[in-house]
Amino acid sequence: MTDPVETYVVSPIGVVRSPLRDLEHAPRQPDEGAPEAELVFDQAVAAALEGIEAGDVIELLTWLHLAGRDTLQTRPRGDASRPMTGVFATRSSDRPNPIGLHTVTVVEVGPGTLRVSGLEAIDGTPVIDVKIALGPQDVR
Amino acid sequence: MTDPVETYVVSPIGVVRSPLRDLEHAPRQPDEGAPEAELVFDQAVAAALEGIEAGDVIELLTWLHLAGRDTLQTRPRGDASRPMTGVFATRSSDRPNPIGLHTVTVVEVGPGTLRVSGLEAIDGTPVIDVKIALGPQDVR
Repeated sequence: MTDPVETYVVSPIGVVRSPLRDLEHAPRQPDEGAPEAELVFDQAVAAALEGIEAGDVIELLTWLHLAGRDTLQTRPRGDASRPMTGVFATRSSDRPNPIGLHTVTVVEVGPGTLRVSGLEAIDGTPVIDVKIALGPQDVR
Repeated sequence: MTDPVETYVVSPIGVVRSPLRDLEHAPRQPDEGAPEAELVFDQAVAAALEGIEAGDVIELLTWLHLAGRDTLQTRPRGDASRPMTGVFATRSSDRPNPIGLHTVTVVEVGPGTLRVSGLEAIDGTPVIDVKIALGPQDVR
């Protein structure tokens, strides 16, 4: 890539409300004992939730605001016995653009809110996008 | 969400090189006839690719730079017979933060490049993150 790089601005669309208060007590992945959490959306985007129902599997994107953006290599899962590995070959939250990707199930839909199963992101994490998980071709 | 919202800056880490030149000719999803593409990474982040191998399944995040950010509802797949639906309940590229999520397989690893299977993003699409796909718990 040789051209000058344009940058883009991400505006959070909501926030994670969770009993998880700090990274040290948070599990690493949704299926590793993470609790339910509530996603509270900005009023301005509430119409974009229309059609999401309890039971839907969604891809939740967050901005991992506490992550380090200068980390290029790490030991997977903080395991000192594992070799240094490029962050793109891991799920580390430390990476140039610290976007969290969480596949979770919607438990309950409220006005401007979604309650989701098993989310490892901590309270206060900005929500930046939601997509329905991609099902088989015949039901898209 | 009532607090003032902080925004974040995404800096592309690379770019998609693809035979797909415009949206009209691009398939909607990776498994709908999309061609192979090359991901060309910025030299500054090349070390973050260390450990990615041919055959790996990755989650590729792109910035869909041609998308509309003001769209909150749409008809899924542009199908006029389907009801207006919130963009968060779809995979539409039009959404407040137009981040593309593509699950693709690495075909070939070059110096600062990854060749991947079936990518529906068009030539010139900025790459913003790569994560290894999350496997079963015992191989993380």
